[in-house]
Amino acid sequence: MSFANALYDGLFADEEVSALWSAEAQLAHMLTFEATFSRAMGQVGRFDAALADQAADHIAGFAPDIDDLSGGSARDGLPLPALIKQLKAGSGDAAQAIHTGATSQDVLDTTLALTLQATLRIIDSRISVLAVDLGELMARCGDVPLMGRTRMQAALPITVADRIRLWREPLVDHRARLDLARAQTERLSLAGPTGITEFRDVAGLMAQALGLNTAPSSWHTDRSGVVSYASLLALITGSLGKMGQDIALMAQQGIGEITLSGGGASSAMTHKHNPILAELLVTLARFNAGQAGLMQQAMVHEQERSGAAWALEWMVLPLMAQTTGRALTAASELVCSITAIGSPEPHKTV
Amino acid sequence: MSFANALYDGLFADEEVSALWSAEAQLAHMLTFEATFSRAMGQVGRFDAALADQAADHIAGFAPDIDDLSGGSARDGLPLPALIKQLKAGSGDAAQAIHTGATSQDVLDTTLALTLQATLRIIDSRISVLAVDLGELMARCGDVPLMGRTRMQAALPITVADRIRLWREPLVDHRARLDLARAQTERLSLAGPTGITEFRDVAGLMAQALGLNTAPSSWHTDRSGVVSYASLLALITGSLGKMGQDIALMAQQGIGEITLSGGGASSAMTHKHNPILAELLVTLARFNAGQAGLMQQAMVHEQERSGAAWALEWMVLPLMAQTTGRALTAASELVCSITAIGSPEPHKTV
Amino acid sequence: MSFANALYDGLFADEEVSALWSAEAQLAHMLTFEATFSRAMGQVGRFDAALADQAADHIAGFAPDIDDLSGGSARDGLPLPALIKQLKAGSGDAAQAIHTGATSQDVLDTTLALTLQATLRIIDSRISVLAVDLGELMARCGDVPLMGRTRMQAALPITVADRIRLWREPLVDHRARLDLARAQTERLSLAGPTGITEFRDVAGLMAQALGLNTAPSSWHTDRSGVVSYASLLALITGSLGKMGQDIALMAQQGIGEITLSGGGASSAMTHKHNPILAELLVTLARFNAGQAGLMQQAMVHEQERSGAAWALEWMVLPLMAQTTGRALTAASELVCSITAIGSPEPHKTV
Amino acid sequence: MSFANALYDGLFADEEVSALWSAEAQLAHMLTFEATFSRAMGQVGRFDAALADQAADHIAGFAPDIDDLSGGSARDGLPLPALIKQLKAGSGDAAQAIHTGATSQDVLDTTLALTLQATLRIIDSRISVLAVDLGELMARCGDVPLMGRTRMQAALPITVADRIRLWREPLVDHRARLDLARAQTERLSLAGPTGITEFRDVAGLMAQALGLNTAPSSWHTDRSGVVSYASLLALITGSLGKMGQDIALMAQQGIGEITLSGGGASSAMTHKHNPILAELLVTLARFNAGQAGLMQQAMVHEQERSGAAWALEWMVLPLMAQTTGRALTAASELVCSITAIGSPEPHKTV
Repeated sequence: MSFANALYDGLFADEEVSALWSAEAQLAHMLTFEATFSRAMGQVGRFDAALADQAADHIAGFAPDIDDLSGGSARDGLPLPALIKQLKAGSGDAAQAIHTGATSQDVLDTTLALTLQATLRIIDSRISVLAVDLGELMARCGDVPLMGRTRMQAALPITVADRIRLWREPLVDHRARLDLARAQTERLSLAGPTGITEFRDVAGLMAQALGLNTAPSSWHTDRSGVVSYASLLALITGSLGKMGQDIALMAQQGIGEITLSGGGASSAMTHKHNPILAELLVTLARFNAGQAGLMQQAMVHEQERSGAAWALEWMVLPLMAQTTGRALTAASELVCSITAIGSPEPHKTV
Repeated sequence: MSFANALYDGLFADEEVSALWSAEAQLAHMLTFEATFSRAMGQVGRFDAALADQAADHIAGFAPDIDDLSGGSARDGLPLPALIKQLKAGSGDAAQAIHTGATSQDVLDTTLALTLQATLRIIDSRISVLAVDLGELMARCGDVPLMGRTRMQAALPITVADRIRLWREPLVDHRARLDLARAQTERLSLAGPTGITEFRDVAGLMAQALGLNTAPSSWHTDRSGVVSYASLLALITGSLGKMGQDIALMAQQGIGEITLSGGGASSAMTHKHNPILAELLVTLARFNAGQAGLMQQAMVHEQERSGAAWALEWMVLPLMAQTTGRALTAASELVCSITAIGSPEPHKTV
Repeated sequence: MSFANALYDGLFADEEVSALWSAEAQLAHMLTFEATFSRAMGQVGRFDAALADQAADHIAGFAPDIDDLSGGSARDGLPLPALIKQLKAGSGDAAQAIHTGATSQDVLDTTLALTLQATLRIIDSRISVLAVDLGELMARCGDVPLMGRTRMQAALPITVADRIRLWREPLVDHRARLDLARAQTERLSLAGPTGITEFRDVAGLMAQALGLNTAPSSWHTDRSGVVSYASLLALITGSLGKMGQDIALMAQQGIGEITLSGGGASSAMTHKHNPILAELLVTLARFNAGQAGLMQQAMVHEQERSGAAWALEWMVLPLMAQTTGRALTAASELVCSITAIGSPEPHKTV
Repeated sequence: MSFANALYDGLFADEEVSALWSAEAQLAHMLTFEATFSRAMGQVGRFDAALADQAADHIAGFAPDIDDLSGGSARDGLPLPALIKQLKAGSGDAAQAIHTGATSQDVLDTTLALTLQATLRIIDSRISVLAVDLGELMARCGDVPLMGRTRMQAALPITVADRIRLWREPLVDHRARLDLARAQTERLSLAGPTGITEFRDVAGLMAQALGLNTAPSSWHTDRSGVVSYASLLALITGSLGKMGQDIALMAQQGIGEITLSGGGASSAMTHKHNPILAELLVTLARFNAGQAGLMQQAMVHEQERSGAAWALEWMVLPLMAQTTGRALTAASELVCSITAIGSPEPHKTV
């Protein structure tokens, strides 16, 4: 569920977002959940208070055996049973104050919520940066004339500012959409074995400690929030894909509406400077669009918990998050590489 | 872009929503746009006031030649140029007060906005009905025990109310999402030939007359609102697909957790009563999920207007709207056909 | 499951292929199946020979009540039970020699096989026509120089013939693929209630009478053939989409590598001639690509027959067939509208 | 483009297939291409024979700097320009006999062909193993009665053999399809800068040395073979998904048609034994189905080479290959874990 391939790391991968979805980061969230759970259960008296604290301390300092967890996933379909077994193994009496009353899905979904939260923070900040980059480009070159084109045909003269506005305004709207995505996904999961929310007192304490909200109801089988989040990621890469497509079109010889510094080298033709970041934005847009459709397929959960539909999310969502992160850095890099844009004497219409 | 096939009309089609997307309904919206446009342009003095009123009256009473429009779509890629020609043909001097300053996309996108608005009204009301149906079922049978199942395996006993809650609460959330979808799509389009918003005074008058908002900026190439709307449709059918899947599972012999009145006959096995509405909900969910991914592909518009990406919406959105409408009537019909639910003596876990 | 909307019939629809998928054509195949089945069952002595002939004659002359069938689909999930009831109603003693031993899926899948066969015939012939059209264009203009472009950047000079070859050769390969698609789908279905092939003697007679093969095993739940067929349709529209994309790029002002006669009018800009057929090919390619993915989702059938996955095919396949048919006529029309192609003095590379 | 995440390696990953798609394996193929190219160019006299051999020896022994290649990908959109630069750097006079006349796409597509070939070998062999596993299960339990189920409803009694046949026969058909996939993808690419096949003599020598065929024409922009291959992968996982879905249904309490040894543990309910491999097969089927649709989207290449559509393949294909490999090992493991199947006294139909 990552794009790890050293040959292409520089192209598709984004270290900062990828790190959020790494095994290490995921495990850290799982342990935080368990420690927080033990402590909160102790606070409300559902666990013996002393044992609960002892359990929480044990968990907080625990270094899991990742190989064993990988084997556990293969056996149990998810790493949790193996992790709980590891946690309990060396915990003595505190074992009874570990995990009892929670379920694997609570741990994994809360881990997901924390990861989506961190991902959104980066995306939000990168959209801001890109909006500034586009604003600076507009300030620098907005008045330059440009031939407006509809259906890929010369239409009527516009200005560079008009074109840049088409790139920037959707991004501003997407930032507003982030708030809704946040509200729909920054939620603790604590719904227990059959996904029927219980322990509301514990949930309140945990949510506060973890910086999450308590969901009004269980989201074990209602994935609307997660799927909407994925849809937003695809909207973002879609808008960037539009910008990339435009820039690739502007960079054609004969059109000559944009000049980019840098640009990809060709192994066969030394005269070429390929607008590879522009093309990359189109690639990432199309990739994410397809994945967003798959996330929608993952809505059909069976009964109180689906293994099949739920695991589909684990395969798809990390890819989408990394793709979106990368598209944003590529877009900023691309915009900053524009040395000239517009066409002082746009081609006459027929 | 419809499911018109007399053999399956009763299964996949929904007369009320289909009517909203028919050629006749679309054309009526187009004429309303043009009449409203002429009148508003007259009001602000961009058209001669008398000619503008004359044009608006002419348009309001106009009966288009649909065959000619169909030929026009084949030739021009959309029916507008032919429609404008028809409108102007018999209008005398008023011809100069028809359409000038607007563009085809303004007409078609405003038509889309009005159609999405009407569609949402029906969907909203059907979700309410379904929520009531589920509420009544819960009142009637909520206390009956049921075996909670996770990963399709018996987990722990729950009640019928717990299961129904998983079906109903996402729908309630979707109703809240409808408000956002409305705000993002109930927008006039009046951005002119190159999609750069002009004539804000005219837009204000038109929006008021048509019951729409004025978009802060042109949405000619930013399809986020429309794509989000499509995503919401897929969320709705996805949630209904989950309910359908559950009911199909409950209706299995050996499980026997639900009894449905009616049910589909088999041509070969007279003893069978197939839970066809439950299966239909799964079918429609999967169909819409795929289409939602395609709508995301339609985000990549070129320059000031894409013909290719825009037309993709025309193929996909009507299918999604009709599918969603049908899924909601099928769901209500299915819920109301439940004569018994739950399992007084749920199967023991191993 | 059709694109019926009078406003767009001329753009997306193709009368000849659409007719193959109409209710009327489908019903005719269903009746042919039933008549052939009765007769063959009589021939091998499974039905009383006289009653079987009587039944076959009755079916052959039968005029179904389509409204009743539509209602039947809504009730039973498919039109067959209602059709069988209609057929038996006025048939007297012959009723016992109607349908008994077959199942709805046999009838609908054989109907599908016959429809796919007829569709392929048209597609095959249209590909031939298009290959000829491209051959003529090559003969006429192949020697004209053209700037070869990679990653949308001027690369090295080629000729028009080189470009046309990229359009034509995949089509020739697709024609070879049609043979495999034929072998995988031109198959009778006669597998009975639980999809376990029986009555091999009857199957042999029926297959011969219907111009189909007998499947070595039941394909009730193995949809590989149908899904491969759908994949081929998407390959065809994909190749045509590539040609459309190229032509749209060549038609840009500033590039000027192609001149098309006709071209779409704009409602706002009379100077424009939009390459709408080129764009349409891209639209249809993207539409079909998404649908091909949905057909793959329909592979997961449950047990001896899935209602949900099977009905998904009914929604998607007719759309793909019509889209492919239309893409081929649009492509031929587009190629024949080329009045000039290539660039005697291609733009210099940087 | 891998599923690398230590937490889930054991679940989604398959070491053997993943290794084929690793940076190291890909690089080894690239170097093999270049060495073979130099030598063949020397043999036909297009390169100085001595320099060509010197170049080939240099390449064969070369250890690339992968970090530099990763940076190169980010800059040039693919690792080739950086690799060629590395290769030439220390090669002295032999530099002129390295890569000249080939293009990046030739190297990457030939690398792809070799990787697809190796992947297919593993898939082929795993399908054989699975077919044997299913055959043994049939031999062991085929005669046990089972209730045939259509539309998830009890239909008529069948035997376990009937059900297993539905699982095994599609796989046998897929093995036949592998031959076609092989013929369509085991092809050298040597089409040069603008994708117009040249150097047929060199191609012949290289193909022989690499164990590939020479493509009759360039496949730089005709991705039909690769997309068909992807479609086949989805067919395979689709058929396995059907088997997984069936087994998950059979394993339900109350149905009790199958008993599996092992089975996943639950972190919350120690009595549970989840059929996680059965569910995993459904997950992988749905994942691959969506990706197959994306590969179809990648058919629309521009002109002589598309950067955007081509790179989409690099993101999607490795995921599909690994998923398919894993689905096959999971399926065999699942089948071999069946300790009892069928239902001596199947539930009576209503």
